[in-house]
Amino acid sequence: MKTAAMTHLDGPSVPRRDRFAACIIRNPVSSVLPRGESDRQRSYHKRQKSLTNGSSRARTSNTKSRQIESFAALPPGSVSPAKRQIKEVKETKATINCVTFPLPGEGPEQQLLKPDEWSYCDYFWADKKDPQGATSLPGFEVLLQKQLKGKQMQKEMSEFIHERTKIEEEYAKNLSKLSLSPLAAQEEGTLGEAWTQLKKSLHDEAEVHLKFANKLHTEVEKPLLTFRGDHFKKDLKKYDHHMADLRKQLASRFASVEKARKALADRQKDLEVKTQQLEVKLSNKTEEDIKKARRKSTQAGDDLMRCVDLYNQTQSKWFEEMVTASMELEKLEVERIEWIQQHLRQYTTLRHETDMFNQSTVEPVDQLLQNVDPSKDRELWVKENKTGEVRPVDMDI
Amino acid sequence: MKTAAMTHLDGPSVPRRDRFAACIIRNPVSSVLPRGESDRQRSYHKRQKSLTNGSSRARTSNTKSRQIESFAALPPGSVSPAKRQIKEVKETKATINCVTFPLPGEGPEQQLLKPDEWSYCDYFWADKKDPQGATSLPGFEVLLQKQLKGKQMQKEMSEFIHERTKIEEEYAKNLSKLSLSPLAAQEEGTLGEAWTQLKKSLHDEAEVHLKFANKLHTEVEKPLLTFRGDHFKKDLKKYDHHMADLRKQLASRFASVEKARKALADRQKDLEVKTQQLEVKLSNKTEEDIKKARRKSTQAGDDLMRCVDLYNQTQSKWFEEMVTASMELEKLEVERIEWIQQHLRQYTTLRHETDMFNQSTVEPVDQLLQNVDPSKDRELWVKENKTGEVRPVDMDI
Repeated sequence: MKTAAMTHLDGPSVPRRDRFAACIIRNPVSSVLPRGESDRQRSYHKRQKSLTNGSSRARTSNTKSRQIESFAALPPGSVSPAKRQIKEVKETKATINCVTFPLPGEGPEQQLLKPDEWSYCDYFWADKKDPQGATSLPGFEVLLQKQLKGKQMQKEMSEFIHERTKIEEEYAKNLSKLSLSPLAAQEEGTLGEAWTQLKKSLHDEAEVHLKFANKLHTEVEKPLLTFRGDHFKKDLKKYDHHMADLRKQLASRFASVEKARKALADRQKDLEVKTQQLEVKLSNKTEEDIKKARRKSTQAGDDLMRCVDLYNQTQSKWFEEMVTASMELEKLEVERIEWIQQHLRQYTTLRHETDMFNQSTVEPVDQLLQNVDPSKDRELWVKENKTGEVRPVDMDI
Repeated sequence: MKTAAMTHLDGPSVPRRDRFAACIIRNPVSSVLPRGESDRQRSYHKRQKSLTNGSSRARTSNTKSRQIESFAALPPGSVSPAKRQIKEVKETKATINCVTFPLPGEGPEQQLLKPDEWSYCDYFWADKKDPQGATSLPGFEVLLQKQLKGKQMQKEMSEFIHERTKIEEEYAKNLSKLSLSPLAAQEEGTLGEAWTQLKKSLHDEAEVHLKFANKLHTEVEKPLLTFRGDHFKKDLKKYDHHMADLRKQLASRFASVEKARKALADRQKDLEVKTQQLEVKLSNKTEEDIKKARRKSTQAGDDLMRCVDLYNQTQSKWFEEMVTASMELEKLEVERIEWIQQHLRQYTTLRHETDMFNQSTVEPVDQLLQNVDPSKDRELWVKENKTGEVRPVDMDI
């Protein structure tokens, strides 16, 4: 069930049902997939006919009838070939946590829906056992938790970048403060100019690092923090509930199957007992009673078939939703990784830039140092500080 | 006076006297320079001869004799042409703080000892007046204070660099600490690797800045602090005392001249009075008395000449030492400027290096970010976390 809020999660515009259909088409393994709608319906009608047409009871010889008749006719304790066959058929599948799987080595080989892609839709069918206790986690939950963890990761990365910006701001502040120092401010001339520029260059460096910090904040930290926003978790929750609901429905259907199965067993037992009693004239039961018992048995069989059918429908629905939802999560994860990659690259770009700008702050210092000229400085200083050019002469008498 | 300790101050190996001689030779202006030793001696002997040869008194007509005779013979009050001449000669020079200079516009034009060089030896002959009070500072002191200030400058520059190293160490410490952060450590796969390297790169940056700090300390800060060491100030002090002593000697010589001048004036006055008295027969003074007075007068004249001679010798000595010492200080200043220039260039070299090394810490991060592969990461994660590949199948009756 896709809500309007989830539309942003749409991948390439392939409608959900078609994607499922595409899976099926790519893998024509209808014998192992829950049968498509049309198959189910056909099968159901067939069964219905065989059961309600009393007169054709003797005639019908399809497997189902045979199975049911054998439920009715066998003497207690005996095992008919048909029953044996049913027992064997049952043991090729197992229902775990209300989901029905083929047992290992049983049934036709299953091909991956998306071979060589390690796709989420291929690997998360079973529930994950909790090593400690009895609880287990649906495969879908594992996928969902990964997405939630991913959100946590981007938040932590953002925090890391934030810490970096703080370090840069501190560094810039210290450099700026030192650049204002009056140390050796009295140095004059070309040397004094070079020294003044050297001090100033610290302020230029500070500016570079401050700029770095600001860009880190706006181009890396903030985006990492706000990517996917708050609605993301809510959307994930919707997926969560949707899939959980389907599992609950499936569990409910399964419970009905179990109940119907038991009811049928009870009816069959009752019929068996009554038939035996008639044969040994142990009771005053009439053939009428047996017919009634037989009818109830048949009904129970019908009920069971209906329950199994409903169960299978629900399981198919869950299957379809699982494929869709897991593909969505897969896409989200690809997008998350690519988005983070892009923004971390922005980080390294800013680092490169910063080092280059920093280099350029040294150039004017180099230039002035090259111009340092002791002769020029002497001229400047002497002009400023000379006391007298006239040289002493001999005193006369 | 050059002590052994000062030998490190030696410039190009031109002996002191020769450098002085070189000044003289370049500027053949012996009429304005204190006369050379040989000149002084010749002049002195000449004067001696004229004064002790009594019989030639009448014959001698050199300026000096004429001057002295005129001291003896003139009637009081009258002004002879010779005396007038002496008065005029005296007014072409002035003695300020015991140093004798030609008055402005008087005497031959003085050429700079080292033209176009703004050399210390040309511009610090007079004392510097203290604008506030009556004291004055010898020109040499101004030069010396500049050197002491230079030492202070290098100390302050060293302190500045020290502050820079502290800032770098702090920055490195912060980066290193952050690089150990566990933030987003749970990110896996290729993205996790890139993130891990990004965090590590902060530690690499920290190493670069720590290295910068250490090199700043050993290659710039420490040398700036220890350049010329403690002995430098002591050596400057020696220069200081040496020149101060010479000035004291000069002052002492000048005092003697003044004293001799006064004594001569007294003798002349006495002779004059006695001669007058003889002429008007005012007293019983005999010619013998006059002869005695005349002799004393002559002696006083001799004394004065000797004092003036000694004064001029001392002034010459001071002159010579001034040229030498100021040239030394000039050389020291050139060396100081060049040495500082060299070490500040080392600073900029280290800055360049640091930015380059810093750039290189980003490269491995770039590389790993380029390798980020969502498909690979999915494969890795799915292999690790899959719950089951077997797909569900329809339940059978």
